[in-house]
Parts: sequence; structure tokens; C-alpha cells
Amino acid sequence: MFSGVRGLMLDVTGVLYESGGCAVPGGPAALQRLRERGYKVVLVSNESTQPTSVLVDKLRGLGYSYLTVDDVITPVPAVIDVIRQRSLNPHLLVHEQVVQEFDCVLQEAPATCVVVGDAEDNFSYARLNAAFSCLLNMPHPTLFSLGRGMYYRHGAALRLDVGAFTAALEAATGVTAEIIGKPSSLYFHSALKRLGLQPSQVVMVGDDLQGDVVGAREVGCRAVLVQTGKYRAEWATHPAPTFVARDLAHAVARVLEDAGDGY
Amino acid sequence: MFSGVRGLMLDVTGVLYESGGCAVPGGPAALQRLRERGYKVVLVSNESTQPTSVLVDKLRGLGYSYLTVDDVITPVPAVIDVIRQRSLNPHLLVHEQVVQEFDCVLQEAPATCVVVGDAEDNFSYARLNAAFSCLLNMPHPTLFSLGRGMYYRHGAALRLDVGAFTAALEAATGVTAEIIGKPSSLYFHSALKRLGLQPSQVVMVGDDLQGDVVGAREVGCRAVLVQTGKYRAEWATHPAPTFVARDLAHAVARVLEDAGDGY
Repeated sequence: MFSGVRGLMLDVTGVLYESGGCAVPGGPAALQRLRERGYKVVLVSNESTQPTSVLVDKLRGLGYSYLTVDDVITPVPAVIDVIRQRSLNPHLLVHEQVVQEFDCVLQEAPATCVVVGDAEDNFSYARLNAAFSCLLNMPHPTLFSLGRGMYYRHGAALRLDVGAFTAALEAATGVTAEIIGKPSSLYFHSALKRLGLQPSQVVMVGDDLQGDVVGAREVGCRAVLVQTGKYRAEWATHPAPTFVARDLAHAVARVLEDAGDGY
Repeated sequence: MFSGVRGLMLDVTGVLYESGGCAVPGGPAALQRLRERGYKVVLVSNESTQPTSVLVDKLRGLGYSYLTVDDVITPVPAVIDVIRQRSLNPHLLVHEQVVQEFDCVLQEAPATCVVVGDAEDNFSYARLNAAFSCLLNMPHPTLFSLGRGMYYRHGAALRLDVGAFTAALEAATGVTAEIIGKPSSLYFHSALKRLGLQPSQVVMVGDDLQGDVVGAREVGCRAVLVQTGKYRAEWATHPAPTFVARDLAHAVARVLEDAGDGY
């Protein structure tokens, strides 16, 4: 099932830790084991409520002590690259904690694109209207969405994610969003480039059926669906996961076992 | 173009008055003229931010002095009828001004349907999450949307309408909303029943291309698109309107002229 694997792409929220909670049991040890056995690992997140450095600090505090920002791909730096390459000026519908990250590309001029991230409480009626008006007034409406995820688990509850609000703006404006994040193939390919591996050598581990599992399969990777995070029982029978694991440690154990590397 | 017309269905917001403003010029006189000439008229609105009686009082204050609640069809009483017929218990994501209207069908038990109306500032992240969770937890998820309109004009600005938030909930839950309002055929048919006329005898006048014009054409009525309200120039070339009028008075004048009734 996992022969020939040389690297893993790991989702963060719901896989390494539960949103609003702790690291998943055995998570830090599992990641350490992969490193010891020489597997390449990159964290591929759609987390857009905090700067990458803050996310990494949090993960280090939860026991993933060897991680650095170079181990993580997140959509905020990725969209800033795209905005810079295309000389655009963004209108932001993002979390207040990441607004400052965009200082380097913000200009005092009419916006030429809208960026929607997971804005949480910033998804107010007023702010959604502002983004909507902005798109309507653009000669060439451009909408970037930092992922397509519809919801995530926070503590005991499921919360709406950026994908749902992107769907609202798409429906109201007729504009199709460009996704900067999973399940975009471009995003998975930048993770593969970071690993320096071919898709056939890489396993994606995630808790989102569409964003993580289906997205990774589409670029030719194998994929493990974990039952932590936002996992829903009806997903177990979906054909896309190569394997359904209880959690990250179970996923890693199975990959190492199949490769003859034992856990 | 308008031969054989015996009745009109009129949209309210953007046709009789501008949201946040006054009656459209010549509107009250045009409606009075239709009555004098013996045309049947019913107002068919997707307005769900206020009780029908408040809406009618507002219209009377704007010069439409002869209107009563029996002249108007709005989605809130319509959805309450449906909820009662099916013995459902609603979770409400509606404007605070209409919450009380639902007292007659609210039970102290888990919700068995979600009702989304134009909630304006009530479309907060917390309330959208509550409606979303509610749908996920239902054995038979049922979502009623009080219309499919994506936006409306309020003063100088366009604002997101119930359709955009319905699209978000549909995308996140996989549930398809039942529309109680335009462009639902059932809704147009209740208006035709109120008029006691056949579709071929009726003209719809509205400012929403999809909700008013396309919706009315689909049940066999003719339709006038007015250039007040949320009108957008690119709609003028759409094949659906039988006629594009400057405003209500222009629409009424043209209908009466064609019928040989002069304005």
C-alpha cells in the first residue's frame, strides 16, 4: 500500500493538533520517528488566521519542537507571491492577525483583487458587502480564496471555513475564485517541489476528504484520511483515501510498516 | 406586446420604492391608474426584513395610500404556512424584526428545519455557524430560503441578499435549499391564484433579472425589467424581458398603451 514512499505532506489543523486544543496523542513522536528514518516531511496547511511564524511557534509549544517555518507551506505567503508577480493591489477579507503580512503589497489605489481567507468573526455582513462591492467595481474582477475548505472542527463544534464564504461571493458576483491553497494542484506541486520528490513517492495525510485526500490523489499522490479533526463517519467508505487511519501516529505506523521500516 | 393583459404582479423594493429612499417618481400615480382602469394588481415581494404589515404601512406613507396587506405576498407568511403544514420546528436565521412572526410555529425541541431570510447584520459568523451546525445535526436536513436574490440596492450601494448566504450554507452542507419566494414557480403560482388570472393574462414588473423576470417567464407570464433598483446595464440585452422600462410609470404606460387603454 505504501511501498516506495520517501516523503509525506501533512495537514496541520485536525492532524497535528485539534483546533482550540492540544497536539493529537502520539503526534510529536510520530513526526520525530519519520525524521529519524530519513523521510522528508512538509506541512501543507490552509491555515490563514495567523502568520506562519505564529503557527510554527504554537506547534513547537505543543511538542513539535524541531519544526521551523521552512517546514510549513501556508496560503498567506503564497498569495502574496502571486499578488506581487501580477502587480495587483488587494482588498482584504482576512483575519485581523494576518492583515499586516500584506503591508508589502498594499497600495493607496483602487483594489484590483479581493483576497478571502479564514476571517472568522471578520466575516461580518458589512465586510462581506465591502468585498462584494469591490469585486463588482473592478474592470477585471479577480478573487483569490485561501482554500476551498467548507468547515473545520474547533473544540467540539464545526465552524464554517473560507470555502463557504467564497461560494457566497462567487454566487453573488458570477466570478470564479482562484484557489491559493488545497485542493489546488499548484499548491500541492509547490509542496512536492519543496520535498524534491515525485508524486508517486509521497503520501498526503489529512482530515479533509476534498481538500486533502481528493486534492492529493488528483496530483498522483497516495493519501491517508485521519479520523481526528473534522472527520465524518460517512467518509470512511469514500474511494479516495488509500487508507483511513485513527490518527497521525496510526498513519505513520502503517506507512513505516509497509516500507519495512517498522515503527 | 401586452395585448390581453388583465393583471400585473409588481416587485416592491427597487420598483415601488428605492431601498433606503423614497417612492419612485410617478409610482403611486401609476398604480392608481391601473386600479382605475380595472387591472388586477398584486405585489410580489421577497422582502423578509420586516412584517408584511410594516411594509404596507411604509408603502402607504410613501403615497401608495390604498394598499392593504391583502394586496401583498411576502415570503415570511408563506414559509410559516409550509412549516405548519409539515409540522416542522424552525431554527431561524432571519431579521430580528420578523423573529416574532414565527412564535406560532416555534417549539421547545430540536429544530427540524432552518429558515434563512434577509438577515442583514444578523448574518454574523456566529449565527451562520449556528444555522450550519443545526443542519448538520438534523436526520433529514431541511433548508428554506426566502428567495434566491443575490443582492439589492440600498441607497447608493449594492448589498448582499439572502441568496448569497444560502449558497454558502448549501456549499458547506450539501443540502439544496427549498426556495419560498421568487423565482420559485410555486410562489408565482400563488400570486396568479390571488389574481384569479392565467399566466398569459399577467405581466410581472421587477428590477431583478433572475428572480423577477426569468422566474415569471418560466411560469408563462410576460415580464418588464425596470431600470430602477438594482438594474445593471448589461441586463438590457438579455432575451428574457418582454420590455425594458425606465421605471414603474414607464412600464404601466406601455402596458396600458398596448391594451388601447392609454395612460
